[in-house]
Amino acid sequence: MSSTPSCYDSLCTKNREITLLANTYNVLDWDQETYMPSGGITYRAKQLAWLSGKIHELRTSESFRDALEGAEEENSDATQAANTREFRHHYERATKLPQSLVEKDSEVTSLAKAAWAEAREKSDFASFAPHLTQLLDIARKKSELWGYEDEPYDALLENYERGAKTTEVATVFEQVSDELTETAQAACDKHQSIPDNLLQGHYPISDQQILNREIAEDLGFDFSRGRIDTTTHPFCTNLGPDDHRLTTRYLEDDFTSSLFGVLHETGHGLYEQGLPSEQHGLPVGSAVSLSIHESQSRLWENHVGRSRAFWTKWLPRAQEIFPHLTSLNLDTFLTSINRAKKSYIRVEADESTYDLHIILRFGLEREMLNGELEVKDVPEAWNERFKKLMGITPPDDAHGCLQDIHWSMGGLGYFSTYTLGNFNAAQLYHHALQDKEIAHACAQADYSPLLGWLQNNIHSKGSALFPQQLMKEVTGEGTNAQFHLAHLKQRFLGA
Amino acid sequence: MSSTPSCYDSLCTKNREITLLANTYNVLDWDQETYMPSGGITYRAKQLAWLSGKIHELRTSESFRDALEGAEEENSDATQAANTREFRHHYERATKLPQSLVEKDSEVTSLAKAAWAEAREKSDFASFAPHLTQLLDIARKKSELWGYEDEPYDALLENYERGAKTTEVATVFEQVSDELTETAQAACDKHQSIPDNLLQGHYPISDQQILNREIAEDLGFDFSRGRIDTTTHPFCTNLGPDDHRLTTRYLEDDFTSSLFGVLHETGHGLYEQGLPSEQHGLPVGSAVSLSIHESQSRLWENHVGRSRAFWTKWLPRAQEIFPHLTSLNLDTFLTSINRAKKSYIRVEADESTYDLHIILRFGLEREMLNGELEVKDVPEAWNERFKKLMGITPPDDAHGCLQDIHWSMGGLGYFSTYTLGNFNAAQLYHHALQDKEIAHACAQADYSPLLGWLQNNIHSKGSALFPQQLMKEVTGEGTNAQFHLAHLKQRFLGA
Repeated sequence: MSSTPSCYDSLCTKNREITLLANTYNVLDWDQETYMPSGGITYRAKQLAWLSGKIHELRTSESFRDALEGAEEENSDATQAANTREFRHHYERATKLPQSLVEKDSEVTSLAKAAWAEAREKSDFASFAPHLTQLLDIARKKSELWGYEDEPYDALLENYERGAKTTEVATVFEQVSDELTETAQAACDKHQSIPDNLLQGHYPISDQQILNREIAEDLGFDFSRGRIDTTTHPFCTNLGPDDHRLTTRYLEDDFTSSLFGVLHETGHGLYEQGLPSEQHGLPVGSAVSLSIHESQSRLWENHVGRSRAFWTKWLPRAQEIFPHLTSLNLDTFLTSINRAKKSYIRVEADESTYDLHIILRFGLEREMLNGELEVKDVPEAWNERFKKLMGITPPDDAHGCLQDIHWSMGGLGYFSTYTLGNFNAAQLYHHALQDKEIAHACAQADYSPLLGWLQNNIHSKGSALFPQQLMKEVTGEGTNAQFHLAHLKQRFLGA
Repeated sequence: MSSTPSCYDSLCTKNREITLLANTYNVLDWDQETYMPSGGITYRAKQLAWLSGKIHELRTSESFRDALEGAEEENSDATQAANTREFRHHYERATKLPQSLVEKDSEVTSLAKAAWAEAREKSDFASFAPHLTQLLDIARKKSELWGYEDEPYDALLENYERGAKTTEVATVFEQVSDELTETAQAACDKHQSIPDNLLQGHYPISDQQILNREIAEDLGFDFSRGRIDTTTHPFCTNLGPDDHRLTTRYLEDDFTSSLFGVLHETGHGLYEQGLPSEQHGLPVGSAVSLSIHESQSRLWENHVGRSRAFWTKWLPRAQEIFPHLTSLNLDTFLTSINRAKKSYIRVEADESTYDLHIILRFGLEREMLNGELEVKDVPEAWNERFKKLMGITPPDDAHGCLQDIHWSMGGLGYFSTYTLGNFNAAQLYHHALQDKEIAHACAQADYSPLLGWLQNNIHSKGSALFPQQLMKEVTGEGTNAQFHLAHLKQRFLGA
C-alpha cells in the first residue's frame, strides 16, 4: 500500500477546503439577511468579496488542475467518477471567469440585495434599475465566457440544472401554458365566492413560531442541526454539514403565510439534512439541481401540507394555539388554504396560479438577456404581461417586478426551475404513493415512510446522477408535467 | 510624486486584509455564541481553525516582514510610527508561534467553549477539566515561545495590556486587597438588613429588551451600527467598522440583571463605535487595552448607571414598562441596585465585592501557569480561597470555578484587567467631572458631554499610546486605585 494520497484524494481535500469557505460565505450571507445592522453592509460586501475571490483562486489554481488531470487518469468507482466529472465541470466554469469578474459579482450582488430591499419597501424601481443593469451586464459577460449553443440563458441555466436546455424548457412551458391558464381560470372562477376572511384574526408571531416548529420537527427536520429565523425573503442555507438554516416571514393576521413558508423551507432542509454525510464537501454530497431541490420543498408544502390528512392531524393543534379558530371546521379550513385566487405576489400565489408567475419571469429574463427588453422597460412589460396571464394589473412595482429577491442576488436563469420543481414534486409524490405502506401512512398523517422513501431515492443520491437521469431512475421517465396538471385538476376542479 | 505605494502603505493594506479575516472570524464566533444549533459545533471549529490559520499565515508572511522592515526605514508621523511599532510587536508575537499551534489553539478553544457551557449547566467540572488542561498547556507553550522576564503570566498579560507586568499588578492588588476586603465587609454588614426582594416581580423578556434598547440608544449607542442579542456569557464583538454586537442574558424575575449587563456592554460598544474610523484595520484604529476597554464599560455601568441622577430620569420610564414598580420610590430603588452582598457569581457581584472575585482568579491563574496548582485541584482551591475572601463557600462548581467563560476561550492572563479597569473607570470619571459643564449635564442625566469627553480623550486615540501613557496624558498619572477606593467608600459607606 502506498502512503501517497491519490490525485483524487488530494482533489477531495482541496474541494473540502473550498466548501468550508463557501459555508463560511453562507454564514456571513445568512447574517446579512437576518440580523446584520444596516451600517454593516459596506464592510460585509468586502468580506464576501474576499471569500468569493479566495474560493475562485482555489478553484482555478494550478494545483487543483494538476490534481484533476491526475484523478481523471486514475481508476475509479461510480462515486469517484461522478465527483471527478463534476470537479471538471466546475473547474471549466470557474477558469473561464477572471477573478476580477468574480469579485465584482460578489460586491455588486451584496449592494444590489440591500438596494432591492429598500426599493421594494418604497416601490421605487428607478433606484434598483442601475443595479439590475449591472447584474445583467455581469450575467451576459458570464454567459459569453461560459459559452452556449442557442442563447445566453442556456449558460446560466446550466448553473442550476445540469444538462437542461432553454429551448426545451420553453417548449414544455409552451405546451402546458394554455392548460395551466385554463385550469387557473376555472379554479379562480369556481372559488370566486369563497370569502377572503375565513381565517381572519390576530396570530401573535411567537405563537406562530411554536406551531411552525412543532410541525417542522414532526416532519423530520432536526433542530439540533438547524434553526428557523426571520427574513424578508425566505430561504434555506447551509452553514455546514450539520447546520441548516431556514428562514420565514410573518403576517400577524394570517398564520398560514409563515406556516406554508416554513413547510416549503423544511422541504429544502430535509433534503440537505439527508444528503450523504460522508460525501460532504464533494459534489456527490451536494443537492443535484434546483428543480429537484424545489420538488422537495413543493412536495412538503403542497402535496403534504395542503392535504386533508395533514390538517386532520394538525388543525386541532392549531386550534389549541389559536383558540379563535376553534369554531372552524376542517372543510372550511381546507377550502380557505386551497383557494384559487388571482394575486400579485408569487410567493403568496395558490398552486393553480403559481406557474403563471414563473412563465412570466422566464420570458422576461430571456428577453433581457437577449437584449430584446431594456431594464427601464421592465415594469411596463411586467404589468402588461401580468394582465394578459392573470387578468389583473399590479398596483405598483413592489407588487410587480420588485417583488422577488432573485435578480438582486444575480439569480438569472433561476426562476424556470420553480415550475420544473412543481412538475417533479407531483411526479415523485405520485410514484411514492404507489407504495401501499407509504400511501397508508400518509393518509394517517404519518410522513416518516414518505421521508424514508425520499431519503433513499433522492436525498442520499446527492449529485451522483444528472437531474433528468435521477428522475428516470426513480420514476421511469424524465420530468413529465402531466402529473402536476392532474394534481391541480384534482385539487381545484375535483377532476 | 511616485506612484509606487510606500512600504508603510503596503503594510497597511496587508493588515486591513488580516483585520477583514479577523472580523469574519468574529461573525462565525458571534453566531456560535448566539444562534448556532448544537450540531454545528464540529464544523464551526474547523471553519474557525481555517481562518486562524490564514490570519497567522498572512501575519507571518515574508511579504509582511519585508514591508515591515521597509516601513521601519521610512519617515513617519506619529500615527504612522505608532502603527509601525504595533505591527512590529504583533509580527514578533505571531512569528514566535508555529502555525500548527495557532490552529490547534483555535480548535481546542472552540470545543472547550461548548464543553464549558455544558459543564457549567451540569456543574460538572470533571467534564471540563481535560479541556482546561489542554488550554493551560497551550498557554504555557505560548508564554515560553513569546518569552517573559519573571513568570509565564507576563507573556500572556502582554496580549491584553501592553507594557504591564504581573509583579506590578500583584503589588497593586496586594496593596489594596485589605482595604477592599474591609470596605466590602463593612458594606455587606451595613446592608445586611436590606430585604432581598425589593424588586421582586415578573419582567417579560420582551419588555426588558424595550427598556434596555431605549437606554443604550439614549447613551449614544448607534443601532444602525450594532445590535443586542442573547447569550450565556455577555460580550461585545466587532464584525466590522460599522457593526458592533452586544449580547446579554435575561432573568425573568430581575430586569436589572440584563439592564446592567447591557449598560456594561454599551460602554464597550461606545468605545468601539468611537474609534478613529480612518484607521480601521490598523493598530491605531483599535482599542488600546482591556483595562481601558473595561474602564469604559464600568464607567457607564456603575458610575453612570447606578447613580441617583440616572434613575431620576429612568425610573419613571421603567415604571411605565413594568407597572408593578410604580409603588417603589427612588430611594428604595437605589438602595436595591446598590446593595452590597456577598455572592458567588462575579458578573452578578455588587461593586463592593467585585474586585475580590478578580483577586481570587488572578492568584489561581498565576499558580496554574506556574505549575503550583493542578487542574484537578482547582475546585477545592477555588472554594477554600473564596471562603477566606468572602466568608462563604460556593454550593457547586457552577457557582464556583465553572462560572466564567474566559478560561474556555483561552483567556488566561485576562481577569486582572477587570480590576485595573475598575480603577481606570473611577479615575477617568473623576477627571471628566472636573469639567463643570460635564458635571452639570451628568447631574441632569444628560450624558452626551461625558461621551464627548471620552470620545475626545480615549476613544478617538485608539492605540496611538500605551495604556499607561494614555492614562497619564488624560489624568496626569498612571492607574491609581485610590479613586476607585474613594468611590466605593462614598457609595457604600457614605464616606
